[in-house]
Amino acid sequence: MSAHRMKIGCAGLGRMGKRHALNFLERTPRAELVAASSPDPAELEWAKTHLEPFGVQLYQNYDDMLKQEGLEAVVVASATAVHAEQAIKAINADKHVLCEKPLSTRVEVSQSVVEAASKKPHLKVMCGFSRRFDKSYRDAYNKMLDGAIGSPSVMRSQTCDKLDPSGFFVAYAEFSGGIFVDCSIHDIDLALWFFGAGSKVKSVSAVGITAVEPDLRKHNDRDNAVGLVEFYEGRIAYFYASRMMAAGQEDTTEIIGTKGKVTVNTQPAMNHVHVFDDSGVRREIPQTYYDRFEYAFVTEANEFTASVLDGTALPLDLGAAVQAVRIGAALQEALVSGKKIFFDERGERTEVARL
Amino acid sequence: MSAHRMKIGCAGLGRMGKRHALNFLERTPRAELVAASSPDPAELEWAKTHLEPFGVQLYQNYDDMLKQEGLEAVVVASATAVHAEQAIKAINADKHVLCEKPLSTRVEVSQSVVEAASKKPHLKVMCGFSRRFDKSYRDAYNKMLDGAIGSPSVMRSQTCDKLDPSGFFVAYAEFSGGIFVDCSIHDIDLALWFFGAGSKVKSVSAVGITAVEPDLRKHNDRDNAVGLVEFYEGRIAYFYASRMMAAGQEDTTEIIGTKGKVTVNTQPAMNHVHVFDDSGVRREIPQTYYDRFEYAFVTEANEFTASVLDGTALPLDLGAAVQAVRIGAALQEALVSGKKIFFDERGERTEVARL
Amino acid sequence: MSAHRMKIGCAGLGRMGKRHALNFLERTPRAELVAASSPDPAELEWAKTHLEPFGVQLYQNYDDMLKQEGLEAVVVASATAVHAEQAIKAINADKHVLCEKPLSTRVEVSQSVVEAASKKPHLKVMCGFSRRFDKSYRDAYNKMLDGAIGSPSVMRSQTCDKLDPSGFFVAYAEFSGGIFVDCSIHDIDLALWFFGAGSKVKSVSAVGITAVEPDLRKHNDRDNAVGLVEFYEGRIAYFYASRMMAAGQEDTTEIIGTKGKVTVNTQPAMNHVHVFDDSGVRREIPQTYYDRFEYAFVTEANEFTASVLDGTALPLDLGAAVQAVRIGAALQEALVSGKKIFFDERGERTEVARL
Amino acid sequence: MSAHRMKIGCAGLGRMGKRHALNFLERTPRAELVAASSPDPAELEWAKTHLEPFGVQLYQNYDDMLKQEGLEAVVVASATAVHAEQAIKAINADKHVLCEKPLSTRVEVSQSVVEAASKKPHLKVMCGFSRRFDKSYRDAYNKMLDGAIGSPSVMRSQTCDKLDPSGFFVAYAEFSGGIFVDCSIHDIDLALWFFGAGSKVKSVSAVGITAVEPDLRKHNDRDNAVGLVEFYEGRIAYFYASRMMAAGQEDTTEIIGTKGKVTVNTQPAMNHVHVFDDSGVRREIPQTYYDRFEYAFVTEANEFTASVLDGTALPLDLGAAVQAVRIGAALQEALVSGKKIFFDERGERTEVARL
Repeated sequence: MSAHRMKIGCAGLGRMGKRHALNFLERTPRAELVAASSPDPAELEWAKTHLEPFGVQLYQNYDDMLKQEGLEAVVVASATAVHAEQAIKAINADKHVLCEKPLSTRVEVSQSVVEAASKKPHLKVMCGFSRRFDKSYRDAYNKMLDGAIGSPSVMRSQTCDKLDPSGFFVAYAEFSGGIFVDCSIHDIDLALWFFGAGSKVKSVSAVGITAVEPDLRKHNDRDNAVGLVEFYEGRIAYFYASRMMAAGQEDTTEIIGTKGKVTVNTQPAMNHVHVFDDSGVRREIPQTYYDRFEYAFVTEANEFTASVLDGTALPLDLGAAVQAVRIGAALQEALVSGKKIFFDERGERTEVARL
Repeated sequence: MSAHRMKIGCAGLGRMGKRHALNFLERTPRAELVAASSPDPAELEWAKTHLEPFGVQLYQNYDDMLKQEGLEAVVVASATAVHAEQAIKAINADKHVLCEKPLSTRVEVSQSVVEAASKKPHLKVMCGFSRRFDKSYRDAYNKMLDGAIGSPSVMRSQTCDKLDPSGFFVAYAEFSGGIFVDCSIHDIDLALWFFGAGSKVKSVSAVGITAVEPDLRKHNDRDNAVGLVEFYEGRIAYFYASRMMAAGQEDTTEIIGTKGKVTVNTQPAMNHVHVFDDSGVRREIPQTYYDRFEYAFVTEANEFTASVLDGTALPLDLGAAVQAVRIGAALQEALVSGKKIFFDERGERTEVARL
Repeated sequence: MSAHRMKIGCAGLGRMGKRHALNFLERTPRAELVAASSPDPAELEWAKTHLEPFGVQLYQNYDDMLKQEGLEAVVVASATAVHAEQAIKAINADKHVLCEKPLSTRVEVSQSVVEAASKKPHLKVMCGFSRRFDKSYRDAYNKMLDGAIGSPSVMRSQTCDKLDPSGFFVAYAEFSGGIFVDCSIHDIDLALWFFGAGSKVKSVSAVGITAVEPDLRKHNDRDNAVGLVEFYEGRIAYFYASRMMAAGQEDTTEIIGTKGKVTVNTQPAMNHVHVFDDSGVRREIPQTYYDRFEYAFVTEANEFTASVLDGTALPLDLGAAVQAVRIGAALQEALVSGKKIFFDERGERTEVARL
Repeated sequence: MSAHRMKIGCAGLGRMGKRHALNFLERTPRAELVAASSPDPAELEWAKTHLEPFGVQLYQNYDDMLKQEGLEAVVVASATAVHAEQAIKAINADKHVLCEKPLSTRVEVSQSVVEAASKKPHLKVMCGFSRRFDKSYRDAYNKMLDGAIGSPSVMRSQTCDKLDPSGFFVAYAEFSGGIFVDCSIHDIDLALWFFGAGSKVKSVSAVGITAVEPDLRKHNDRDNAVGLVEFYEGRIAYFYASRMMAAGQEDTTEIIGTKGKVTVNTQPAMNHVHVFDDSGVRREIPQTYYDRFEYAFVTEANEFTASVLDGTALPLDLGAAVQAVRIGAALQEALVSGKKIFFDERGERTEVARL
């Protein structure tokens, strides 16, 4: 193992950007965070305290950062709207890229990143679906591979956020692509992982409600939605996404096979503590997505780095990231139109149900 | 409390009939099982040993049993195909009726029982949805009433049977009405209970697969199916039914409200035992529906009896039983046709999605 | 199976007496409750409403009840102080006896019941250690017999009551024999069951505190106590008893063997419900011993009855009930004196530790 | 926050030494591992691959390492027998010290480290009781401080290792100080943490067996032991240690207070995965102490570093480490002699139980 460390820059220093920057700075031994960019003065101010003293060069302008000498890779952790553009710029500047999910809320834009990457096969370009790096999901996946559940047939998966009483997510919904593209995208990715990236969608249907935030309808969004995806391979995935959990983050998955079932997080818990008092037996659960998946992000950073340094295969394929957006967008359309949407085996829309 | 005991007869002595007969004989102190009927010689033979010595008169013919002097009530536990006919005959003979679910697999036939009952308002006529008598479901319901979850908005509920490798359920599927009418009917009933019996369906959609028993398609049935029901009140219920669980019976329900969530059986367990060995930590779960709900059936028998003897209201309304069949049949149709089905606010079919 | 029903009388109609009476009246099909006695006018008043209308003859005087024609058996559910006396009288009157635990708080008195019973070998005389009839304990025991844990080596077991803020148990402690005789007696019985009735005690030690009820010291008792029992067979049992649980009844047992471990109730739960709210995930637990073991008492009544009617062996041996008192009393003495107590292999006290 | 990083050397590169070395190298951003020593050629070979390329200087001789220019601190992770000696040498050389537990298996030797440290108050000298850095234990502790359980009164705590069929621990027992000093020391430290470092022991008693490794008796040790500690403050702690768990590591703690109970790891789990198959519902648990507490060691390294760099108080007091050895050694003596051991309020041995 060489002692050379991958020099990486971080684009965006918002909520996720800060985390990625610190993970590459402190928890990715084989990487060296050498640069960070943000157009936001407050974010740069934060970086002056937390990054600059450790040798990280700061930029207001992303394009300038790309020119930093010796920079080898970029983690794109900016607003979703510029994910694709920044990823493509980095690819064109010959940098490896780790891009936060989704590549874009739109299928064609997502596809353009894949095309840019395909022209530079020597670069490692990865979309960060964090659950793929979570120990529990990996354990479940390996158990499935080992035959513990027979043939996987039905997946139930949910991404459910704790209610944010500030209503931040209403404004956010304007650009998020909707609850299926923003939240369920993780569950869709899991379906493509567990069922196989080549799985062909036959139909999607969805319903949604606004139980706590009626204003979401302005942006064609809902605060609770259930989606149903049927695959030509004789498999079903069904998804629940919600913005109104009371106890905390509840991301739960079951994969039901012909011989057994493997579940992740059907008994959510923040740690190993239980309190017994006059209200009964109680435990706390993670409050946010990051509380639950913090170490998955660390693993993601480390594995992306190892793949770049060692020239080994990335742990997940960029094409699946586009397919996930495709399914998420179809579910969102089904939600808004109320209609069931059918596809033929080539992935083209069709008007009729195929039995 | 009077010492008078309600004299009841049991129609049908198959798997469920035996259980109802013994429950009324041994575990319903205020009832007296005085009669039982079955056209099946093997079932009557069983009854000669287990019922006759304790004063139960046996009949090959249901109509004869109805004429037994002093008989006050009938529990209809025969084949689904004759539920409605036998219930109506009992009503016409002025007997109280506890009828196994479903009244019928067809909506109109189910409705005919309601009509017969409505002409005899002095009679207690109940369709036995056993989960309504289960302590856990009642506790969950009461917690919801007490405001523990705010306004109930989304229900997830499943009825999942352990795989029967004999394939019995393939032959059974010919008459069962399909997996949504046979299994999910319980979950649908729960939705009508927790959301209110007056809940109005807006749309239903469903998909299904035959992962282990392709022959089910001959009877328009599936071994795994997911259904999605949207209500005009801004609520969603989604259901999963399966015939291929490996570990045992898994009947699980979550009711998600605006302020919290109440769940039943997200951590299934047969008892309080765990085994720690080199495979990890392990517990067993109930193997059958009756293993899980045995005491609910006992409570059902006792509460039906109390209602008859004390002239008090039945714990559940007959009309909801018809509504449950209506929704189940629509889901089954959506499953088979692949189409999403829409209803207007009066409950009539409509061609278009209403947003 | 004969239709003859065992005619039984209930001695004592206090908290446990009422339960035994109703269990024999309503939930023991092969028994007939024909008599009940209590010196307490209030208890008799209750019986006039709940027992008399169903053919139960009431007595103020226990001796009179014993003379009732046709009476075959007695369940002794009176105050502990008269358990032995009433049991012996019943044996002398040629009645089968089910006696609540303990036979007595004193070893010699307990032994006198065994001696009386030994003179009437045709009678069934049983001390009701209810946990032996609990489904979970039986499942654990059978798993041990099936080799699931190798050779059982260490038992941890606790009987922990919810705090009764009325302080009733302080007055009660005057006659209870102390926390080890009153509460841990169940755990001691479990040790004798799982390790074998012939297990020979080598040493006992114990400590206790009065965390909530200092007045218990007046009666040489404590509200929390831990006891340690060493057996000559190379096994250890350690017990915890408490009167101050906040959440409810917590009776938990672990049996650790050379190849595995089987546990009962390490995750206490009243039912299958969980509530998710802003305090986390919560479930309730049983509030009292009877909440937890209600059906064990029903099974006890039914199995005692079957043993009498069918002339089959009792499910548990009377001798073990004396041995349990012997160990409980030694623990209590160790608790009060602060000394460790040693026994030789014949069960005699000895001054020195044997290594 | 200064960008200066604490320069630390690691003494010992065995199982724990490797982990400490890598934790300071890769997962302690404010520290810089600059040196490592081991007398073992195989360990040094490992270090040439894993440490040297990253700038870590290697030494065969501990004393030489202490002389490395710029070295500020040492983590002592060598064999227990030299913990104290190496710690004292480091203190004398004016280095901060993080010493693996226990300081020594002997009380006086442990105390000598405290004395050496007391002469250099500017140095940070800490004994690493890893559980104090575990998130769950900290959460439990904070909940106790917040009043969740009233006054803590009884602690049950266990350190139970998975059976190592190689029997390594038999040879290891020769120097380990015995099961109470080697394993229960963690639980004893927890008692001193939760009950207060000033807690005064009144009595200790203990029993043990050799269920799987009779050869342990040669070293006065056992493979299963239960110890009972009574405190003058009216508190009880009882401990279970075992070398024969089948499923994996089971380190469980309950703190029972007058108003509630807080538990850590009563439901052990390695991750969030459950498998449902024909054996029931199953999950895996951590296999080793390090599997369970890996991140606690990382936190320990980071907090020790912060304390050195920022001049803040250490998270745990060195004196408690001696007190823990004192109690562990007394329990081990009680185990071997079979006798109960009493102390007066000044901590002196006394012959009689004080009530």
